Amino acid sequence: MTPLYQRVAFVGLGLIAGSMALAMRRGGLVAETVGTARSAESRAIAAEIGLVDHVTDTAAEAVQGADLVVLCVPVGAMDAVAQDIAPHLAQGATVTDVGSVKQAIIDAVGPYMPDNVHFIPGHPLAGTEHSGPRAGFAELFDNRWTILTPQDGVDAAALDRLTRLWQGMGAQVDVMDPPHHDLVLAVTSHTPHLIAYTMVGVADDLRRVTDSEVIKYSAAGFRDFTRIAASDPTMWRDVFLTNKDATLEILGRFTEELFALQRAIRRGDGEHLHAYFTRTRAIRRGIIDAGQDTDAPDFGRSKR
Amino acid sequence: MTPLYQRVAFVGLGLIAGSMALAMRRGGLVAETVGTARSAESRAIAAEIGLVDHVTDTAAEAVQGADLVVLCVPVGAMDAVAQDIAPHLAQGATVTDVGSVKQAIIDAVGPYMPDNVHFIPGHPLAGTEHSGPRAGFAELFDNRWTILTPQDGVDAAALDRLTRLWQGMGAQVDVMDPPHHDLVLAVTSHTPHLIAYTMVGVADDLRRVTDSEVIKYSAAGFRDFTRIAASDPTMWRDVFLTNKDATLEILGRFTEELFALQRAIRRGDGEHLHAYFTRTRAIRRGIIDAGQDTDAPDFGRSKR
Repeated sequence: MTPLYQRVAFVGLGLIAGSMALAMRRGGLVAETVGTARSAESRAIAAEIGLVDHVTDTAAEAVQGADLVVLCVPVGAMDAVAQDIAPHLAQGATVTDVGSVKQAIIDAVGPYMPDNVHFIPGHPLAGTEHSGPRAGFAELFDNRWTILTPQDGVDAAALDRLTRLWQGMGAQVDVMDPPHHDLVLAVTSHTPHLIAYTMVGVADDLRRVTDSEVIKYSAAGFRDFTRIAASDPTMWRDVFLTNKDATLEILGRFTEELFALQRAIRRGDGEHLHAYFTRTRAIRRGIIDAGQDTDAPDFGRSKR
Repeated sequence: MTPLYQRVAFVGLGLIAGSMALAMRRGGLVAETVGTARSAESRAIAAEIGLVDHVTDTAAEAVQGADLVVLCVPVGAMDAVAQDIAPHLAQGATVTDVGSVKQAIIDAVGPYMPDNVHFIPGHPLAGTEHSGPRAGFAELFDNRWTILTPQDGVDAAALDRLTRLWQGMGAQVDVMDPPHHDLVLAVTSHTPHLIAYTMVGVADDLRRVTDSEVIKYSAAGFRDFTRIAASDPTMWRDVFLTNKDATLEILGRFTEELFALQRAIRRGDGEHLHAYFTRTRAIRRGIIDAGQDTDAPDFGRSKR
């Protein structure tokens, strides 16, 4: 097929950028990929493993002549990167991103975007607990969702082209308004991550339960938390700082529910507990039916 | 090899009992297995799939002539089962259990055990989110830990024999005192389960985020919670009712930590968040080094 884009520039070369570059190559979706990263080590690794066709030292060089620019830096770095690349963007180029929050990125990046550039924010709902240029793989987005949050008056052709690119990388694409995206993700990703980080921190603190015991006996539930809590600290710091309101709202509801269950335990109210635990089984069934997980029992050894 | 036990009786035929029966058969560890369950349907399924050599209608029949009796019922049912089987236990038999809490089971079962019987409580740290007689598989305990909590004056030969049985089923065996077991499990299993149940319940409640959205976009963290929260409601109700003190203590520490992180989010204290998230990465590395998980990225499709 004819490439959807002639030159795709990645600013940032972590798990998502690397997986996108490999997925684009797998699908023959673009003619050329170029990338840059702030860290010289990441640039060297990307060049060494051929993650992209060309590695440049600066973002300004990377975006020159690119008809698609993908911002793959932590949310907190988007503002500076946008300011940095703006003067070098090609006329008619599409600029997108892969940040986990959307309104804050629109506020940070939007003001710098020239009128002749199509800015279409995006968020692929896929990842692993690993990070860095060596973490990427072409299958990361297969059967996963990517949410695009275009603003009013977006160019329909540019939106369609970016949508087909994501579909070519294996993803299903939805369009959402930014605040709703940020609320949904606060529920399905941001708050669960904060809770997992917290629980792992508690275990780490507890002096009467040595690390070795916590680790040895992690099989029954805790292990899943540690995988989530191993995610990139900088990315997650920025997520919570930039999706503050939605995260705090969901956290408030979470603690409310947790206190109700805690009270039921203290009072020995088995009926309340049993009813609650029965209700939560249904949503699991829905996820399996939706093809976002399998029904095969996972007891921690089953890996790619 | 000569069988370690001549006749093993399972009271309860769920995931753990079924997996033990299959693992004993795999290892040629026992001469004969017999089992019973309260539900006629479970008994019929167990007989149909040949989970054990013989299925009996009552626990009294099952334990007759058994040199090993394994109590595999919810913690809340242990008291009644112990009272029921006590008069029928063979002289010199070993009675063990697989309950997720230990002190409460010792208090419930111990008083009914005749002097000529060896009562050695146990807890295999392995499981899946599935339950019932069809959920078992012989590999469940491979490279997992089983904790035995014998009381003072336990018969050394009986303890050694039960230890070798668990090792034959693939498990590593540790001995612990019951209150410490209950605290360690409150950290590594009980509190994480309660938190996962709570988060799934919050998502289920939230009206502005439809179920379908929560399910569609579950890939980034929430999915792991739903698997944990799909576990057997009766078993978990009993765990929290019978490990109340340790669970409430860990819950208290958890909410304390969570509020500190919530405050850091509200105040925009990125340093606090970044330091916390960095610290939790280390414990994950420890679990991988301990062989209780693999370093392969898990993005939800990798199953047995």
